[in-house]
Amino acid sequence: MIFLTRRATFSASHYYWNDAWSAERNAQAFGRCANRNSHGHNYTLEVTVAGEPDPVTGFVVDLKWLKDVIEREVLSAYDHRHLNLEAPEFAAGKLLPTTENIAIAAWNRLQPAVTDAGGARLSRIRVYETSDIFAEYRGERGEL
Amino acid sequence: MIFLTRRATFSASHYYWNDAWSAERNAQAFGRCANRNSHGHNYTLEVTVAGEPDPVTGFVVDLKWLKDVIEREVLSAYDHRHLNLEAPEFAAGKLLPTTENIAIAAWNRLQPAVTDAGGARLSRIRVYETSDIFAEYRGERGEL
Amino acid sequence: MIFLTRRATFSASHYYWNDAWSAERNAQAFGRCANRNSHGHNYTLEVTVAGEPDPVTGFVVDLKWLKDVIEREVLSAYDHRHLNLEAPEFAAGKLLPTTENIAIAAWNRLQPAVTDAGGARLSRIRVYETSDIFAEYRGERGEL
Amino acid sequence: MIFLTRRATFSASHYYWNDAWSAERNAQAFGRCANRNSHGHNYTLEVTVAGEPDPVTGFVVDLKWLKDVIEREVLSAYDHRHLNLEAPEFAAGKLLPTTENIAIAAWNRLQPAVTDAGGARLSRIRVYETSDIFAEYRGERGEL
Amino acid sequence: MIFLTRRATFSASHYYWNDAWSAERNAQAFGRCANRNSHGHNYTLEVTVAGEPDPVTGFVVDLKWLKDVIEREVLSAYDHRHLNLEAPEFAAGKLLPTTENIAIAAWNRLQPAVTDAGGARLSRIRVYETSDIFAEYRGERGEL
Amino acid sequence: MIFLTRRATFSASHYYWNDAWSAERNAQAFGRCANRNSHGHNYTLEVTVAGEPDPVTGFVVDLKWLKDVIEREVLSAYDHRHLNLEAPEFAAGKLLPTTENIAIAAWNRLQPAVTDAGGARLSRIRVYETSDIFAEYRGERGEL
Repeated sequence: MIFLTRRATFSASHYYWNDAWSAERNAQAFGRCANRNSHGHNYTLEVTVAGEPDPVTGFVVDLKWLKDVIEREVLSAYDHRHLNLEAPEFAAGKLLPTTENIAIAAWNRLQPAVTDAGGARLSRIRVYETSDIFAEYRGERGEL
Repeated sequence: MIFLTRRATFSASHYYWNDAWSAERNAQAFGRCANRNSHGHNYTLEVTVAGEPDPVTGFVVDLKWLKDVIEREVLSAYDHRHLNLEAPEFAAGKLLPTTENIAIAAWNRLQPAVTDAGGARLSRIRVYETSDIFAEYRGERGEL
Repeated sequence: MIFLTRRATFSASHYYWNDAWSAERNAQAFGRCANRNSHGHNYTLEVTVAGEPDPVTGFVVDLKWLKDVIEREVLSAYDHRHLNLEAPEFAAGKLLPTTENIAIAAWNRLQPAVTDAGGARLSRIRVYETSDIFAEYRGERGEL
Repeated sequence: MIFLTRRATFSASHYYWNDAWSAERNAQAFGRCANRNSHGHNYTLEVTVAGEPDPVTGFVVDLKWLKDVIEREVLSAYDHRHLNLEAPEFAAGKLLPTTENIAIAAWNRLQPAVTDAGGARLSRIRVYETSDIFAEYRGERGEL
Repeated sequence: MIFLTRRATFSASHYYWNDAWSAERNAQAFGRCANRNSHGHNYTLEVTVAGEPDPVTGFVVDLKWLKDVIEREVLSAYDHRHLNLEAPEFAAGKLLPTTENIAIAAWNRLQPAVTDAGGARLSRIRVYETSDIFAEYRGERGEL
Repeated sequence: MIFLTRRATFSASHYYWNDAWSAERNAQAFGRCANRNSHGHNYTLEVTVAGEPDPVTGFVVDLKWLKDVIEREVLSAYDHRHLNLEAPEFAAGKLLPTTENIAIAAWNRLQPAVTDAGGARLSRIRVYETSDIFAEYRGERGEL
């Protein structure tokens, strides 16, 4: 079993705000992230797939194909977007676009498309919000 | 003459839009950056001051003081903010918050405060929008 | 289960020396690190906590809280310190402050404080001594 | 159990080409990598060993020894080499030097030498082809 | 005057060899780089243009246009290529593809195209061969 | 004129202390850096030489030679050392080993050796104390 990772970046806006709370409570819980004018990040997304290298090509998956899948399933929805306003899974206050939730959402977006590839499967998602903060998710498998 | 640089980061939203233009022309000029819902970046700011090291302390300027100046003059206005909506120099469509204009604006914010320090002077501002794009400004001196 | 990581840095001095050995044997075992005048590093510490994101905030833990815990439990003891002389777990030759032992010591310092947070638990510590050398520790769980 | 990693780099040429295929099929499968004049990369290799720190030295393994093992077992064969022409495991079209296969080959080169060290064992190989693409291998153990 | 930089990467093979010299002299002058099977690098190219930001767009040059110029003038000739065999300025032993000469060659390729842009001019080229080695060139202007 | 840079790293201890001052004044001026037990850093040194590439080799200087010069003139004195206690220019409180003073001292150590090389000359020294703090020095030439 080999684990192959492709990294991509996207630039997006977001804010943290719970409509059910007062402004004070939002400020207390979310600090400067509660500014509803939004702020933004250069996010880095690492997509790891697991599988056996093909005996002829030596590829677990074709990296060009994986790049296109990431572009189509994640970047087209998140890059140069306001996550709270434009990404369906976060819109209308459904879910806050924290680093944790972005990692889960990227997993959910990528898992069916990567599984289609026959043999390989999605193994791990890592999302960096800044160089100092990142979240990892492995789906049902749980453990790192 | 020694050149001493301190790096800082801020996370902000922005978009590019000219009210005097049609939506088509904005899209043509600014591409995905014309999305008025905004997107954002982790900006890196490098502030370089020039001077002679103090013979006793060995400092061109006190780096803790320089950190506080950057925090007060730039980060308090830009970090976790929407540059088009909240930074006075960019608000109300006065000026687009491009990497180039952010570098000039940061110079204008920092130059008086750094000059106050006696001896040292602001020498160069570098602003990274992403790891692949950055702008430098040296004020009146022009040349790199 | 989501794994959330916060990175921090500290600058410290250390040396490797075993009082029970001759100078020759220390030099042989530890090379340039046996210089008792000490040398130092900018260490990078990555603290990973595991848990479910809170359904309202989307946080596994509050990252500001985690930053304060790291500051209080680790950085206050290690940053701008001489590890052999000032950190209790390494003082008086008890234990050598190798990258491996610093990772275990940081785990022992952080594990009770992070467990207090209710729900989340400490999952992994990674310590970089330089960009080319790092150690990871996961406590009782053993495996990466 | 502690996991200790040492990073090394090597610069090498390679290309992807299957002699059993037409030029068209090679171009379709491998794109620009099918150029038989070759292209090259600065590869980064991360070698992780697992073990208990020695109670006296605090080392899982001696990092200088590990550096020498990596130099002797991997870098002497790959650094400043053409992988398809000079590395025995890839020569004569036996196996394509993809990131995945380089990770497995580095494991096979390092595993016996590291196991000789008594106590510690090879735990994980990570190979970066560029900063955006990397493969991991853990031998028989399979899972990350 | 603002200096705007765009970074790009390319992966290429090269070797150092002077046909007028014996194998021994080549080995002495060029060490492992004299291996005519070639080795390769991930090169990083930084292209800096100088000019005044347009008062309406805030751009010194359009970064998408600059990306296309770099792609057309440099990357199409160097990326996934063997520099000694495929780049006309280095082919047939005319010139060795050292970091220094690649910086000059990239300048010569880019300078006319960037000058066409009206107003802005090419100001500086920086080429990294590895993270530890880079060359800068400023054309006629000479000084950094 | 081409500018060629070679990067090197060294790990050292230091502290800031002025014997002519009280402990209070030292603490006020130098904060945590006044801890006389010392702390340390992984310093990065960038050495830039200027010259014309040799028409045959394409080298401004031989990079292996430059590596040896840096090793002999700077790293042998600073790496795995306590700068205040072991580097002659800083010993006995003569001069504080600030980033600024280390840049000047490295220039003074390297300038005669590099000038010996015939043709090329030392052009710029950059010293990083951390990734966020660095100093540059260009000798008599002053300006960046």
